[in-house]
Amino acid sequence: MVATREIHLASRPDGWPTEANFAVVDRDLPAPADGQALVRNVYMSVDPYMRPRMNDVKSYVPPFQVGEPLDGGAIGEVVESRVDGLAPGDLVLHRLGWREHALVDRPRRLEPIEGVPVSHYLGALGSTGLTAYVGLLEMASMREGDTVFVSGAAGAVGSIAGQIARLRGAARVVGSAGSAEKVALLTDKLGFDAAFDYRDGDLYRQLAAAAPDGIDVYFDNVGGDHLEAAITAMNDYGRVALCGSISQYNQAKPPPGPRNIGLAVGKRLTLRGFIVSDHASRFPEMARELGAWLAAGDLVAEETVVDGGLDAAVDAFLGMLRGANTGKMVVRMP
Amino acid sequence: MVATREIHLASRPDGWPTEANFAVVDRDLPAPADGQALVRNVYMSVDPYMRPRMNDVKSYVPPFQVGEPLDGGAIGEVVESRVDGLAPGDLVLHRLGWREHALVDRPRRLEPIEGVPVSHYLGALGSTGLTAYVGLLEMASMREGDTVFVSGAAGAVGSIAGQIARLRGAARVVGSAGSAEKVALLTDKLGFDAAFDYRDGDLYRQLAAAAPDGIDVYFDNVGGDHLEAAITAMNDYGRVALCGSISQYNQAKPPPGPRNIGLAVGKRLTLRGFIVSDHASRFPEMARELGAWLAAGDLVAEETVVDGGLDAAVDAFLGMLRGANTGKMVVRMP
Repeated sequence: MVATREIHLASRPDGWPTEANFAVVDRDLPAPADGQALVRNVYMSVDPYMRPRMNDVKSYVPPFQVGEPLDGGAIGEVVESRVDGLAPGDLVLHRLGWREHALVDRPRRLEPIEGVPVSHYLGALGSTGLTAYVGLLEMASMREGDTVFVSGAAGAVGSIAGQIARLRGAARVVGSAGSAEKVALLTDKLGFDAAFDYRDGDLYRQLAAAAPDGIDVYFDNVGGDHLEAAITAMNDYGRVALCGSISQYNQAKPPPGPRNIGLAVGKRLTLRGFIVSDHASRFPEMARELGAWLAAGDLVAEETVVDGGLDAAVDAFLGMLRGANTGKMVVRMP
Repeated sequence: MVATREIHLASRPDGWPTEANFAVVDRDLPAPADGQALVRNVYMSVDPYMRPRMNDVKSYVPPFQVGEPLDGGAIGEVVESRVDGLAPGDLVLHRLGWREHALVDRPRRLEPIEGVPVSHYLGALGSTGLTAYVGLLEMASMREGDTVFVSGAAGAVGSIAGQIARLRGAARVVGSAGSAEKVALLTDKLGFDAAFDYRDGDLYRQLAAAAPDGIDVYFDNVGGDHLEAAITAMNDYGRVALCGSISQYNQAKPPPGPRNIGLAVGKRLTLRGFIVSDHASRFPEMARELGAWLAAGDLVAEETVVDGGLDAAVDAFLGMLRGANTGKMVVRMP
């Protein structure tokens, strides 16, 4: 028996979530059963997709339930193992974040890579990097010579997507972000050819200036007016990977859709929504390629690490929704 | 030299076009040059896509020019030929509609099929049928067992798309149309499993009632609230063929886009715009399949033939935009 703490959904947010929508709850965990490991979490992930899961809407995963713990990607250190080959002190990757300890079924052991922070298994080497990879190369079928636009480009997925585009031979990579510092990060550190701050106004104009010959691929993390501007900027046979729409998640009413969707006919556009877990059979080969880029220093895994453990998690999550992060945001558990 | 008449774009419509946007103009045509045929048109096509071409907007084809003749699909009878193997009286398929006579370069000779009206080369056996075929089977990748929703289902393309769905093994084919008579046509004559009149209100409710288990494929001829309702009704991995958006063509201001486009992520939807002429290399095999269905009586080529020749053409076009047609509308030239 271990006394631990976890974060529950206390009530469903209406629009922007607040601290009041969450509750820290004490809990006792029993000893692990056969095939389980008891782990102490050392990192947990906060991600945009968690916000729509707080609504009572059926989607590809069931919504979070009020009065129940949240979950999400996490890295745990084994405290007690009833799994063959897994010993105390080993690290495992699992889905029971938002809690200090967890009983993990069939835990997946992590092999730390020399010189690579283990937290990258929640980011560039984990769901985030794989999402960028699948979206850009499979869904949007990016090809050498394409001009690629990534929205939310300083975020966890966007920052990797833009870099993969460069590494795979895009002719030009353009990103949008929400501050001058983030714009500088994109062009100065992450190798984007151009970037702009969407808060500076007129997206159409800014995108046209950054990509004067139009765009062939749009990686959409933002939705809303970003998607609309991208459709206008797209060249014939352009492809959109619909990854998420963080601009929409906290709107209580359905936001306007892209008024120019009709352009998709004449331009022969393809828009494709996807969920990374559908592509799990290819994760090993994708992760190998991401890992090689990372090891070679070609891919920068930008990361915002929040200290303070579980008590800092809600605040980290709310900050991430407002753009407080650059790259992947993780919470370090002391 | 032949004295003839043609219809020009007199001014660009703002919203719904009127007679005043068109002008009948007298013209003398010279004798055909080598490789040309002088034809007298016997049928001309009026199609929804002609409306956006009247706006001054760059698209996959240049816009119609003010003071210049319109064009579009037509069938002509050869009057004078300077083409090897083409004799007076032969029928040719060409793009110089909206005029009584035309000088056709490299004319494509039509072989009338016993028992099949030659006008079907503008419809089920021509662009219309091929558009339905490409959209349904190539763009939306319709598979046996899919539930298919077609909007504008009593129109030229929609009426063929729904029937191809049935012939290719759809589990259920649902159509929307704009009158009780059209709804009856869909279910009683064209073999749709269910149909509804979109003018009866709440599209979501009507679509859910017609396809209670959701839809896998949506063939979009209408855009606007039809597209939005379809996205809500779609099952996971659903596919949308974006063929046109007749509900939008006459709106002076950009209409609202689908507010629920964000659902495309969790549902893994693919939306794909297309232009039939991109697929010309496969037209012969597609036309063979369409022709075989037609000859066997499995495919009904619904047609609205307007008499009155060139003088009736503008009125026919305006009527088609308002839904006066069932199936393909053609103008017969006396």
